[in-house]
Amino acid sequence: MALLVQKYGGTSVGSPERINTVAKRVARSRAAGNDMVVVLSAMSGETDRLINLARSVNPEPPARELDVLLATGEQTTIALLSMALERDGVPARSYTGSQVHILTDNAHGKARILGIDDKRVRDDLKKGRVVVVAGFQGVDEEGNITTLGRGGSDTTAVAMAAALKADECQIYTDVDGVYTTDPRIVPEARRLDRVTVEEMLELASLGAKVLQIRSVEFAGKYKVPLRVLSSFEEGPGTLITYEEDEMEAPLISGIAFNRDEAKLTIRGVPDRPGIASHILEAIAKANINVDMIVQNVGADGTTDFTFTAHRADYKKAMDILRLVAGQLKAKEVVGDDKIVKISVIGVGMRSHAGIASRMFQTLADEGINIQMISTSEIKISVVVEEKYLELGVRALHSAFGLEKAAPNNAQRG
Amino acid sequence: MALLVQKYGGTSVGSPERINTVAKRVARSRAAGNDMVVVLSAMSGETDRLINLARSVNPEPPARELDVLLATGEQTTIALLSMALERDGVPARSYTGSQVHILTDNAHGKARILGIDDKRVRDDLKKGRVVVVAGFQGVDEEGNITTLGRGGSDTTAVAMAAALKADECQIYTDVDGVYTTDPRIVPEARRLDRVTVEEMLELASLGAKVLQIRSVEFAGKYKVPLRVLSSFEEGPGTLITYEEDEMEAPLISGIAFNRDEAKLTIRGVPDRPGIASHILEAIAKANINVDMIVQNVGADGTTDFTFTAHRADYKKAMDILRLVAGQLKAKEVVGDDKIVKISVIGVGMRSHAGIASRMFQTLADEGINIQMISTSEIKISVVVEEKYLELGVRALHSAFGLEKAAPNNAQRG
Repeated sequence: MALLVQKYGGTSVGSPERINTVAKRVARSRAAGNDMVVVLSAMSGETDRLINLARSVNPEPPARELDVLLATGEQTTIALLSMALERDGVPARSYTGSQVHILTDNAHGKARILGIDDKRVRDDLKKGRVVVVAGFQGVDEEGNITTLGRGGSDTTAVAMAAALKADECQIYTDVDGVYTTDPRIVPEARRLDRVTVEEMLELASLGAKVLQIRSVEFAGKYKVPLRVLSSFEEGPGTLITYEEDEMEAPLISGIAFNRDEAKLTIRGVPDRPGIASHILEAIAKANINVDMIVQNVGADGTTDFTFTAHRADYKKAMDILRLVAGQLKAKEVVGDDKIVKISVIGVGMRSHAGIASRMFQTLADEGINIQMISTSEIKISVVVEEKYLELGVRALHSAFGLEKAAPNNAQRG
Repeated sequence: MALLVQKYGGTSVGSPERINTVAKRVARSRAAGNDMVVVLSAMSGETDRLINLARSVNPEPPARELDVLLATGEQTTIALLSMALERDGVPARSYTGSQVHILTDNAHGKARILGIDDKRVRDDLKKGRVVVVAGFQGVDEEGNITTLGRGGSDTTAVAMAAALKADECQIYTDVDGVYTTDPRIVPEARRLDRVTVEEMLELASLGAKVLQIRSVEFAGKYKVPLRVLSSFEEGPGTLITYEEDEMEAPLISGIAFNRDEAKLTIRGVPDRPGIASHILEAIAKANINVDMIVQNVGADGTTDFTFTAHRADYKKAMDILRLVAGQLKAKEVVGDDKIVKISVIGVGMRSHAGIASRMFQTLADEGINIQMISTSEIKISVVVEEKYLELGVRALHSAFGLEKAAPNNAQRG
């Protein structure tokens, strides 16, 4: 008999009908002999509705009170799912974050989980009950209601699974797993049966936004077996693993990309210590997140400094950079908001040379010019012209044989 | 510096605009130098919306889960009012029933308050904060969310006031006080500056539904000074007192009435012990509440048994009575659902004879036939034909001089 933690997102509990569907699914898992803990989000759209309600009363609602208000969202869905389960003859108990004592710090709106008192949950499970827990919310040491921030329900589920040493934490979403790349661009894209945490993190942060990043980090920390599944169709989904045995890991797991990038360059900066930090400090002060950074030393004692940022911040970043260029007596500032980032990801590449050159050659064969390169242990990213996005992703997907079943990428070294 | 507990009902917090109005009123009371605790209901209509939502998932929602769902109603309004207060520069803190630890028994949906831990409230008041508490809800010994049932927010306010030994518990409603009778029937009806708990109970139970009865009983038990005021207009409202000094009490405080009555009679029942209980037991089993009961012994060794019930239960009660009549070999069953009850109320009548005769004479002068009479220490009720309701109430209001200022009713003995 396994202990499963299942988490259903806002779309999965968006209406009484969908809550009934979730109830049936939970009842089936229980009938199969599993102990069941279910973590729920608020109905999709509800959190935004509550935020608008708050703003209608106070344009800058105090964080403590906003958390009190937002917490009603999951309190509603946990009660409704418990009712639906009981109607089907499945004994169930709902718990708010406060009731099941999901202890957090007091950073309202972005609180971090410090601990969970699992006694009540274990008692209920022993009595054969399904335990339905409100995601996204907790309680601080003083008994104040806190929320974990957007996507926090995933984190709640992982934390519950860690506390209960669950056999699996199953995250039900509107996709049926993690893919080698976006199937809308590459029809041959393949659902991965398994993916490592590190790969998952890279895939999630680069656009394949299946899971909230913090929850994946959390799962990695406590080695919680995490599975992503669809709440609308049957299937095994994708299991997130923590294996370090690279012999079994595929060389490359997937191709990620990011359409929302812009590139900014400050040219001919006199090359002296502190230049990079001077530029980045000005950008950071404006709350602009920087992604890739490249700096090259030129022939004439000056340097070119290039970075990418979110496309929405492009204009603001350009203005700041022009100001900084004046201060630094740089030659000029140029930018381009028609670029994208494409990344090849895989823990297997750590110990294998030749991945980078294969990637660059593949793009060159297609006539795609690489504007920037950035690498990490399990990822190689390039910046290319926006118009080459689909072509580049498809070419790389095929070059690394991702349409074929893992773990033996054709290119394995 | 006084400590005030103010309670605002669903209509008073029915929209962001109205919540702003409440915030201004609370801020004014605080600016006048008072320590403020505010108890709120859910937005008007919200509880019904949530019940319908529950029923869409489970036609008979389990009571524990229904309470979890319903409790979100006040959690929403307390957060919003606190936000509105903070926007106006008034420090405020919201607390759910569970957070401020309104301990109740575990009778979900109709829980009774057992105690309140007032430490957090006192701490906040000391820090100059307005404390905003969710009405209607509490928590049982095991940490389960409970609700007190309809109108329970009044009870929460009174319980808070009792626990804090507040100087006054002010119940804001959509009427500006307790009247000598319904002003829609008697334009001369006068707002009472003061009314005793007993009178209030009779007035409330007979149709002048200003306050929830349980809250008034509760206030009486703990001698909480209770005041009813309008949340829409300024005014002193009506103070509910516990004075026993009848010399100061007016003879008659008001005329109450109830349109929703029906009268049922079982005639010619063989008069032997146990008849009354036999009849009432059958009625009670069908969950029908009986109001007035009259039994007369006839000449032929049989008895006539008459009672009144809510008009909605009339048909069901008639059916049961016909069945019982057969068992008891009674002569016949007759009924009338076109009757009303009119009551004269006043603690002053306890020690004064002649009130009843004046009441009956007044009705007789108007040609109104009295069908049933029932009396208690502070109330005389009669049942008359429905069409005489307005005439009877007006005649009695005038006969007892209720349009003139208390305490000296013209008729004082």
